[in-house]
Amino acid sequence: MEKGKVLERKVFYAGQKVFGEGDSGDRAYLIQEGSVEISKHGLVLATLNKGELFGEMALVDDQPRMATAKALTDVSVVIIGRDSFREKLAKADPFIRGLLNIFVRNIRNLTR
Amino acid sequence: MEKGKVLERKVFYAGQKVFGEGDSGDRAYLIQEGSVEISKHGLVLATLNKGELFGEMALVDDQPRMATAKALTDVSVVIIGRDSFREKLAKADPFIRGLLNIFVRNIRNLTR
Repeated sequence: MEKGKVLERKVFYAGQKVFGEGDSGDRAYLIQEGSVEISKHGLVLATLNKGELFGEMALVDDQPRMATAKALTDVSVVIIGRDSFREKLAKADPFIRGLLNIFVRNIRNLTR
Repeated sequence: MEKGKVLERKVFYAGQKVFGEGDSGDRAYLIQEGSVEISKHGLVLATLNKGELFGEMALVDDQPRMATAKALTDVSVVIIGRDSFREKLAKADPFIRGLLNIFVRNIRNLTR
């Protein structure tokens, strides 16, 4: 991704995997069109639609993906890269940054 | 709390409850001195010490407390009020605000 550029669009076709549990990840996805299924150990956790975000944990830490994301229909997404997000975050209040880290750590602990 | 004032200190004595599961809450606590036990349904989830934050979910949403917090020793805390925090948050990037909401919602779903 071009430096300083925050948004990039991408299309996934019905049935295509966006990412798999355990993969490394450095970006989040905002759904512009279509439906995405989030699953873990083969169990469906959520079906997400237009306007919803997934893969957002990777913006805050660099742990492996907790779940698998698969396009249920043809899906158009906007990609939010971690590096671009961190430039945004660097300008935020340090307390807010700390809070994001705490929430992400708690979510990882809860799903372990 | 005085309007615009972000920090207020408070002491809890050993054995004293800071808040109980199901209570309404509008503040987080940063431990300055001492130890706090976090429990849910009588099960100890964590023991927190100096420099650690608890009750932070209440800064983002206004749902009841998910767990009980009890002072294990005499504890000195700094209180961060939701209203003061929200003034801080209002200046943050909208994407960061959205992310905080998503994380808090996910934590509540995971602990349900």
